[in-house]
Amino acid sequence: MPPIAEKLIEDDVPAYVLNLAQAAKEASAVIACAPTARKNDALREIAAALRTASADILSANDHDVAAASALEPALVDRLKLTPARVEAMAQGVGDVADLPDPIGEITDLTYRPSGIQVGRMRVALGVVGIIYESRPNVTADAAALCLKSGNAAILRGGSEAQHSNQAIAACVRSGLEAAGLPAAAIQVMATTDRAAVGHLLALSEFVDVIVPRGGKGLIERVSKEATMPVIKHLDGVCHVFLDDAADRDKAEQIAFNAKAQRFGTCNTMETLLATPTAATEVLAKVCTALADAGVELRGCERARAFHPEMTLAQESDWYEEYLGPILAIRIVDDLTAAIAHIRQYGSQHTDAIVTENVSNARRFLSEVDSSSVMVNASTRFADGFEYGLGAEIGISTDKFHARGPVGLEGLTSQKWIVFGDGHIRQ
Amino acid sequence: MPPIAEKLIEDDVPAYVLNLAQAAKEASAVIACAPTARKNDALREIAAALRTASADILSANDHDVAAASALEPALVDRLKLTPARVEAMAQGVGDVADLPDPIGEITDLTYRPSGIQVGRMRVALGVVGIIYESRPNVTADAAALCLKSGNAAILRGGSEAQHSNQAIAACVRSGLEAAGLPAAAIQVMATTDRAAVGHLLALSEFVDVIVPRGGKGLIERVSKEATMPVIKHLDGVCHVFLDDAADRDKAEQIAFNAKAQRFGTCNTMETLLATPTAATEVLAKVCTALADAGVELRGCERARAFHPEMTLAQESDWYEEYLGPILAIRIVDDLTAAIAHIRQYGSQHTDAIVTENVSNARRFLSEVDSSSVMVNASTRFADGFEYGLGAEIGISTDKFHARGPVGLEGLTSQKWIVFGDGHIRQ
Repeated sequence: MPPIAEKLIEDDVPAYVLNLAQAAKEASAVIACAPTARKNDALREIAAALRTASADILSANDHDVAAASALEPALVDRLKLTPARVEAMAQGVGDVADLPDPIGEITDLTYRPSGIQVGRMRVALGVVGIIYESRPNVTADAAALCLKSGNAAILRGGSEAQHSNQAIAACVRSGLEAAGLPAAAIQVMATTDRAAVGHLLALSEFVDVIVPRGGKGLIERVSKEATMPVIKHLDGVCHVFLDDAADRDKAEQIAFNAKAQRFGTCNTMETLLATPTAATEVLAKVCTALADAGVELRGCERARAFHPEMTLAQESDWYEEYLGPILAIRIVDDLTAAIAHIRQYGSQHTDAIVTENVSNARRFLSEVDSSSVMVNASTRFADGFEYGLGAEIGISTDKFHARGPVGLEGLTSQKWIVFGDGHIRQ
Repeated sequence: MPPIAEKLIEDDVPAYVLNLAQAAKEASAVIACAPTARKNDALREIAAALRTASADILSANDHDVAAASALEPALVDRLKLTPARVEAMAQGVGDVADLPDPIGEITDLTYRPSGIQVGRMRVALGVVGIIYESRPNVTADAAALCLKSGNAAILRGGSEAQHSNQAIAACVRSGLEAAGLPAAAIQVMATTDRAAVGHLLALSEFVDVIVPRGGKGLIERVSKEATMPVIKHLDGVCHVFLDDAADRDKAEQIAFNAKAQRFGTCNTMETLLATPTAATEVLAKVCTALADAGVELRGCERARAFHPEMTLAQESDWYEEYLGPILAIRIVDDLTAAIAHIRQYGSQHTDAIVTENVSNARRFLSEVDSSSVMVNASTRFADGFEYGLGAEIGISTDKFHARGPVGLEGLTSQKWIVFGDGHIRQ
């Protein structure tokens, strides 16, 4: 797509968005069948372009950061690029080139009694819309994942990162063109008009799936308005359950790590559950370590006996995704009660049991209906890189299509393929 | 669920539907973790109950058929049960017991550099809503598939089959109870109030996916109103393309079989495409055979040269799913033109190429973006039984989640499972 004058875009936003979507759909037919080598060439060209244009990107970013000075510091930090962050972005795009190409993979090819041979072939979804906030690196990450998975993409970043995103978009465009792929395969919206998102969400004829990445407000708005499927991540109310048969050291280490290794991530533990026995053995020590790390403790009546500064948790605490240095703690009678608690208050994101008892582990794995269920490991492992996906476009808390960390495979589908030798149905 | 007095149901349909959905959600937690043997016991008990209650089911069906006498004969035929059809229904339910249980299957369990072991476990979706028309056998089929795949189900049949469906529902209920599973796991709506469907489609909190089975009107209404994901099947505008390199015999047999083996099915060919060379070699013979079988031929100008009675196709014919003895025929210059035609007019259901040229076959497989793509086989093979799924709940023309024939696996999802030995994130 040739650059369009800004004036024209703002004059008719619906027409602009429709034009983007049509161009994306057209490009998706090319990108869906593009040879692996060509997609990888494009990714390497994009990485090179990001490195070459580093100064331009940083200068565009200065522009955004200056305009954002009134925003809260955490937001400005997410927005801010440095030479190291641009290099990491280029590195990330190059890494996607090194991942195996999921497209065209044929599996389960077997002969049927009729004589036909039936299997499945992995294919792109089509056009992926990504709506995100503040972090400009998402522009490069998302472009790389969509390109590698054979999808066209329409990227819509936050208005606060508009100059940075456009500078990165120029690199993506030049990389695609250098590799002989249509530039419209990855388009970054050139308008910050808030209504443009609404127009995009109405175009289910051209856009096959939407991935919102950002705060809860954004995700809820997108889920509500989208007329196409959404890969969305709502709350991460993650639990660690210390079973009667928990190993003391593992319990202490996992409970501490799941909360304190990083406070603001969606796979951070928000509620610690423990049986009375496990609590007696390790809870005091865990609470002291967490309190020393600056974590505020809110517990049920029984839990409060294990730490002097623990306040009484309210019913609402069990539902809370704190995303910060606060932990809810509850003593539950046994595994059954722990599973019931997780079912009632959890968000089906990530939950872990600490136990040496294999029957309890098996039951927890089977009965806890979350996108990641863990035995004797920290919830902080719920992550595309840790799972070996190479990269992730997001974490899905839905069950339909993709669940948990979504990598390249989550951006694909499978079609059936049939080989015969003149076979007809009897 | 205990039977509810009809008066009560009709007095407050929204409350009745909400009650069904809540009961289904509750039962889904039990059925999702039910042991394979217990689910199979229930299926065999249901099959036995259907056989035992055959006379009752037939008498309820007589009731429906008598009331339906004003409807068109094809509809009455779909509605009508016979002793053989009841036996086939029981047989079908028993066959599902013999299928492998998808739930709990663990795949891709590998060690990561961090030392954790990561894999996936197949799990149920939760509560499946099935909305269907006329055929009472769907009640038993859908109940069996949902039960085996660990889902609770809410079944809503057509009002014209209400007595038949309730008689079958009684067998399902008694089978579940005999196996010690909650009867609320499979509920058949006891109201024929049209508004009940609307109430159900609003309950995304309790119903995880909706499968409409029936005419286009039903499917469009459900897709429009549903607040949860829909596994839907819209048009089946299927193509067979006779390539330059088509084998004559295969071309003739496949073209005839794809159209004439059965006219009214969604995987029946609706448009035949041929290159000029292929047309010269086989089209006259194919057209004669089809015309002799009662098929009306509508072709492009060039195609009309090959059969005296072929009428001129209109632009609208290329989009048409006739579901009857009519065929559109078009001469296309080459493979590229054939793929372009299928992309423009097709419905992404099932498309086949007849060719001996391996490069053309590979290109067709890669570039035709349909749920089933075939080489040298009749489109009529696009079917859950033919593909080895054992049974199918429908055929999806969407790309998201499930594509093509949907069997047990399409009613499931996968969660991530992680095993550690006290592993924490660094």
